[in-house]
Amino acid sequence: MVCCCLRPPGQPRRWQGAMILASRFTSIRLHTLALAQPLSSEDCMAQSMPDASPVKWHLAHTTWFFETFILEQIEPDFAPFHQDFRFLFNSYYNGIGARHPRAQRGLLTRPSLAEIQAYRNDVDERILRLLAPRPDDRGLAELVTLGLHHEQQHQELILSDVKHLLAQNALYPVYSPDAPHAGRATGPARWRAFEGGVRVQGFDGEGFCFDNELPPHRVFVEPFSLSSRLVTNGEFLAFVEAGGYRNPSLWLSEGWDTICARGWSHPIYWRLDEHGAWQEFTLRGSAPLQSDEPVSHLSMYEADAFARWAGARLPTEAEWEYAATRGIGDLEQLFDHCWQWTSSSYAPYPGFAAAPGAVGEYNGKFMVNQYVLRGSSIATPPGHARASYRNFFPAHARWQFSGLRLAR
Amino acid sequence: MVCCCLRPPGQPRRWQGAMILASRFTSIRLHTLALAQPLSSEDCMAQSMPDASPVKWHLAHTTWFFETFILEQIEPDFAPFHQDFRFLFNSYYNGIGARHPRAQRGLLTRPSLAEIQAYRNDVDERILRLLAPRPDDRGLAELVTLGLHHEQQHQELILSDVKHLLAQNALYPVYSPDAPHAGRATGPARWRAFEGGVRVQGFDGEGFCFDNELPPHRVFVEPFSLSSRLVTNGEFLAFVEAGGYRNPSLWLSEGWDTICARGWSHPIYWRLDEHGAWQEFTLRGSAPLQSDEPVSHLSMYEADAFARWAGARLPTEAEWEYAATRGIGDLEQLFDHCWQWTSSSYAPYPGFAAAPGAVGEYNGKFMVNQYVLRGSSIATPPGHARASYRNFFPAHARWQFSGLRLAR
Amino acid sequence: MVCCCLRPPGQPRRWQGAMILASRFTSIRLHTLALAQPLSSEDCMAQSMPDASPVKWHLAHTTWFFETFILEQIEPDFAPFHQDFRFLFNSYYNGIGARHPRAQRGLLTRPSLAEIQAYRNDVDERILRLLAPRPDDRGLAELVTLGLHHEQQHQELILSDVKHLLAQNALYPVYSPDAPHAGRATGPARWRAFEGGVRVQGFDGEGFCFDNELPPHRVFVEPFSLSSRLVTNGEFLAFVEAGGYRNPSLWLSEGWDTICARGWSHPIYWRLDEHGAWQEFTLRGSAPLQSDEPVSHLSMYEADAFARWAGARLPTEAEWEYAATRGIGDLEQLFDHCWQWTSSSYAPYPGFAAAPGAVGEYNGKFMVNQYVLRGSSIATPPGHARASYRNFFPAHARWQFSGLRLAR
Amino acid sequence: MVCCCLRPPGQPRRWQGAMILASRFTSIRLHTLALAQPLSSEDCMAQSMPDASPVKWHLAHTTWFFETFILEQIEPDFAPFHQDFRFLFNSYYNGIGARHPRAQRGLLTRPSLAEIQAYRNDVDERILRLLAPRPDDRGLAELVTLGLHHEQQHQELILSDVKHLLAQNALYPVYSPDAPHAGRATGPARWRAFEGGVRVQGFDGEGFCFDNELPPHRVFVEPFSLSSRLVTNGEFLAFVEAGGYRNPSLWLSEGWDTICARGWSHPIYWRLDEHGAWQEFTLRGSAPLQSDEPVSHLSMYEADAFARWAGARLPTEAEWEYAATRGIGDLEQLFDHCWQWTSSSYAPYPGFAAAPGAVGEYNGKFMVNQYVLRGSSIATPPGHARASYRNFFPAHARWQFSGLRLAR
Repeated sequence: MVCCCLRPPGQPRRWQGAMILASRFTSIRLHTLALAQPLSSEDCMAQSMPDASPVKWHLAHTTWFFETFILEQIEPDFAPFHQDFRFLFNSYYNGIGARHPRAQRGLLTRPSLAEIQAYRNDVDERILRLLAPRPDDRGLAELVTLGLHHEQQHQELILSDVKHLLAQNALYPVYSPDAPHAGRATGPARWRAFEGGVRVQGFDGEGFCFDNELPPHRVFVEPFSLSSRLVTNGEFLAFVEAGGYRNPSLWLSEGWDTICARGWSHPIYWRLDEHGAWQEFTLRGSAPLQSDEPVSHLSMYEADAFARWAGARLPTEAEWEYAATRGIGDLEQLFDHCWQWTSSSYAPYPGFAAAPGAVGEYNGKFMVNQYVLRGSSIATPPGHARASYRNFFPAHARWQFSGLRLAR
Repeated sequence: MVCCCLRPPGQPRRWQGAMILASRFTSIRLHTLALAQPLSSEDCMAQSMPDASPVKWHLAHTTWFFETFILEQIEPDFAPFHQDFRFLFNSYYNGIGARHPRAQRGLLTRPSLAEIQAYRNDVDERILRLLAPRPDDRGLAELVTLGLHHEQQHQELILSDVKHLLAQNALYPVYSPDAPHAGRATGPARWRAFEGGVRVQGFDGEGFCFDNELPPHRVFVEPFSLSSRLVTNGEFLAFVEAGGYRNPSLWLSEGWDTICARGWSHPIYWRLDEHGAWQEFTLRGSAPLQSDEPVSHLSMYEADAFARWAGARLPTEAEWEYAATRGIGDLEQLFDHCWQWTSSSYAPYPGFAAAPGAVGEYNGKFMVNQYVLRGSSIATPPGHARASYRNFFPAHARWQFSGLRLAR
Repeated sequence: MVCCCLRPPGQPRRWQGAMILASRFTSIRLHTLALAQPLSSEDCMAQSMPDASPVKWHLAHTTWFFETFILEQIEPDFAPFHQDFRFLFNSYYNGIGARHPRAQRGLLTRPSLAEIQAYRNDVDERILRLLAPRPDDRGLAELVTLGLHHEQQHQELILSDVKHLLAQNALYPVYSPDAPHAGRATGPARWRAFEGGVRVQGFDGEGFCFDNELPPHRVFVEPFSLSSRLVTNGEFLAFVEAGGYRNPSLWLSEGWDTICARGWSHPIYWRLDEHGAWQEFTLRGSAPLQSDEPVSHLSMYEADAFARWAGARLPTEAEWEYAATRGIGDLEQLFDHCWQWTSSSYAPYPGFAAAPGAVGEYNGKFMVNQYVLRGSSIATPPGHARASYRNFFPAHARWQFSGLRLAR
Repeated sequence: MVCCCLRPPGQPRRWQGAMILASRFTSIRLHTLALAQPLSSEDCMAQSMPDASPVKWHLAHTTWFFETFILEQIEPDFAPFHQDFRFLFNSYYNGIGARHPRAQRGLLTRPSLAEIQAYRNDVDERILRLLAPRPDDRGLAELVTLGLHHEQQHQELILSDVKHLLAQNALYPVYSPDAPHAGRATGPARWRAFEGGVRVQGFDGEGFCFDNELPPHRVFVEPFSLSSRLVTNGEFLAFVEAGGYRNPSLWLSEGWDTICARGWSHPIYWRLDEHGAWQEFTLRGSAPLQSDEPVSHLSMYEADAFARWAGARLPTEAEWEYAATRGIGDLEQLFDHCWQWTSSSYAPYPGFAAAPGAVGEYNGKFMVNQYVLRGSSIATPPGHARASYRNFFPAHARWQFSGLRLAR
């Protein structure tokens, strides 16, 4: 969901007990390290394109977030772990000051991975020390909760970014033989019909949400249908083999320009091997394409062209959210397989207001020329997603775990 | 409104008497020539950027539209005026075949302007000859009507494109001393409040509309307010002088990147003269900036940043259309001054369907990464606009006659 | 020879009688107009790439040269023809002040071609009025002579630039049915051997030369051979058909990168027609490729690759000049067909000194990353070339009348 | 010296005893490892720009050279260390096959640095095993000698590339506190005069040289003078402070375009600190600028502009070589401080012939748009340079250890 880091810092809606919070903090912070565990310090340092970041940078930036927005605000005798980290690991917060150029994050050979791990340890200890005597400090609990959801967003980015990096290597390196690599297959697709009417969209429950999910508001939805499951590799292969990438009438004009200029003729991680068989690069290395698994790593242009070819369309986010809230018993693969492109541009809900101060400085600044994805993917940490969650990326992005569900 | 030509060819809703149609045809075609009349053949040939087209090209392409979609389909012994014009003056219809590269339209020194005028005369005569004996041919009437609305879109483009061209010249050339150049000033701005509820959006009347205005459908609108008039040059100047172009917290992230990369520090046609006074380049030449006229030629980024600075926001297209339909008595400058940016991305209405065949080949292909503008401008031909009309341009476009009305 | 205008303004070596000079002035200035005569004002205004200039700009700039470097210096009550022309028609003289961006010369629809012709008339009259009472003013005569050689360089550029412009047009327009379009064919090529030794290189005679031909100096030349004639279209076609453009071992590394990046697979004005026959675009329009005419419009990369394929090499400029001076009886096509690439980079002769003042401000500033061509072409005005003349262009330039003669 | 690796593989002129060769092999190969010793595996993996390569890549590519051009040709049962290394570590030899994209060398996190060290050990052992029983195999000895000179070229590149990488880091990292970082200061500059005449240029002695130094041939040199020492930081600072980077009349036209486009206002590794004092980034970290040390890391444009400002010029390579051969007693700092730009473009000597086969595939392919540097630098391995040695880089390159000596 995150162009480079938390974009939509949000408002935790309920306070959580301090003990539970400390435990969650420890567990989520450790999970990030576990994701980096199969990687060498070399793997953690490279940046394969400006949109992606090195794993080491993710490890440092998520720590910088806690240091800058919590320790620096609350610690009585705050001193930074390292003076220059404020500059090196700021993602895009103009309010915090200047920052290292995004496209050159892969040049930060120093500080070393070991130093970043020490940085994490130090900040973790200080956060826990801060939490212990403040069981009733709701503002602190909210900031820590926000930092943890921010960290979970970067956990997914670590996997998408490292997958993109390893894919550049002719050796087809394996991230981990146990890595999540695709959703489970299901049966034939069926259409599920939904009635139209005025619906409530946006987060309206207990617990945490980001502020881009607020406020809940009314929308009118015309009657629609959604497919019972995601589009599969096999279905998308039929599109490829039917000349889908060579037929301009199937594409948005910008999409057609993009595939021509970049020479796209199939999904990013697919390739024909020397025997003419389709292989897919996964976090487990290169493997034969599995036709009944959900197709993933599509740009919105590709998802939209497929839908048009199939005589259908992408859902709007209002349709998706309504179906996910009301119709969950009938629809498979809403979560945990791949993010699902919608036709909705990322825009503020009526009444949306940016939070004051640095942490909310840029709540809405990404709300242009991006499209919303709903659901969650194999790379999303457990417990992170929900029906009102709004992930978003530019229409050309295809290194994320992003597929589609048809609507009509 | 038009990236390069008619994007959303539409569906005329009612037939018009053949005599009236022939008369309208003649009058609109002559109006296009009248717009080119103050220009030399040299003025008509240059292309100042890939987004703009030479006037000569507009004159030819609008003619090509009638030749290709009407004469070629209906004339019994059709022969093209010139074999190569099919290639030279196709804008973006892949179904029609290959075409001259868009960015090189300014290299077409041949055919000459005189030859293009002959081309117009020939096609005009043949269209009129076709109309006379077919008073009941509703399909023909609809195609001609479509071609005339297409031509009117290009009439506005002729003015915006030639203005951009002349602005590149250090001599500040005058297009015409009588040219329209700005909207009239009005009194102080007031907020007009509107109730929320389910509303009908889209064209639902008599006469012509484009298919992107269809079908009429229900939307839920939360309560909102609109300013009674457009933002003025004087108000925008206050934003400039308050450092608006140097404060990242006012801008969408992409907008900030754009103004930094391109060095924008004020609207495109403004400049400080050698005495420190603001001048504005207009179709009447360079003139002192008029502070009580509507500000125009803004990108959506600039309009959005101004709105944020002013503690307001851009309206959605649903809000604008509802106000224009219900509240026309209370709101000034809805039409005829400048197009008004909305925060709505250009997307299909529920149930939108592309027309079959070449003329509708690409009805929806521009529905990504563009934003809707509503109203009309000093450059819009009389009778062309209406409350449901959807103009659209990329967020960075600022050579159009585009300003803003505040909402909250 | 000229990246955008006279680069190496030179030192006329001998004074010429005032009457003769006035007559030469009139005749050369008229010849420039004659070159523009087959062209419409539209043809004269377009710019097909940043390296080329519109014909109208050439007409104005050569006039600006006389106005700025002569009238402004000498006329007692000098007033510029138009205040802004100093800015609009300066090519690259930083000493004269700011200038219109080179890549936007094609946007100068104003002043019109008619106004530029009036500008030429005015300056011509004033120059002639200046010359009449100053028969003994050697400095004036030298400046006028320099201006005339400058004008002749632009005469050749008018033809190469307009040819490039017309070639962009799918109509294959004819510049003039009488235009020069290729050198005459000759017989089989023979090797001419030359002895080595110390030779004098550089201009050492009577009359005008540019300062880059000075001073004459000694060089040591090892024994070498030159082909008796230029390489022909037929010979170059054999290279094309033998896969010359697909074999990296024949190319300089930069040349190979260039042809891959730009997709070159044959000389710029060649094309295969729909019947599989080679056509060449010429100033007389499109015509079947003539195999026994000299191949022209090659970049230095292409000339060098052909030479390597043919088991030969390009000559050095010292070899060419020595052969042209001593061996003229034995060698055909030294002049008047096409400029001949040498392997010599454009560098100052030992003892070269830039002239003082604005006219010589940049004498040497192009002496890097350019290669010398010798001889002259079908587009060179009569009397302009000589054996010591140093034309120069970047290695990738191929819109000039440039071919090759083999050496070994 | 090397755009990406050995460009001009050469011809060892004399055989060397097998024992001496084995000992030299071991010592040079170990020296490469010693250069990498202060660096972490992260430092060794990053690539700061396409012109530079990661240290790990240098370690692998120099090994690939021995494996491909020696082991693969001679070993009876040759099997590659790793099948894919042929692809990954080929620099630019089209004859060897496809290769990893140059600009993406920094993405090769696998193979790891440890694996590359194993690769080096394996190839080293096999080369030594090959050498032992073949004391009289002159061809083998020549190839090994060539590989060692190739390796020494990369030793210098390791230092220039890692310096460029570390300079991107706001922490100003230290490569090594003992690193060579600048030449020694000397006394005031004096002019040394040399007579003109026919001289022999090119390698004409015992031992190894590259083929671009061959054949020795005669050149005529006009009388000239050279400065007794290199230009210093203090002298170059005077140029900077006199506005040298803002005065177009001092620059080659391409140089001026370059400094404007890239915003250069001083040498690459200089910066003004927060107290207004000049600091220089060195392999020992950031340090105050030493005014009496030779200025280094200049592009040819900067060296040329300085010379023009100083009323002098760059020497030709013929002048430099003649002075270095005949006048070594009078001239200081010919070697071991910084490479010295000449005004000579890199071109083949008369009679130059490319070696047959893959190793010499591209002997001359870089001989366009590059300029020759003479001498050697603090980063050049001992024993590598000589008076006839021709280093070369594009005129804009400034990450090398390159300075200048004035001529007139």
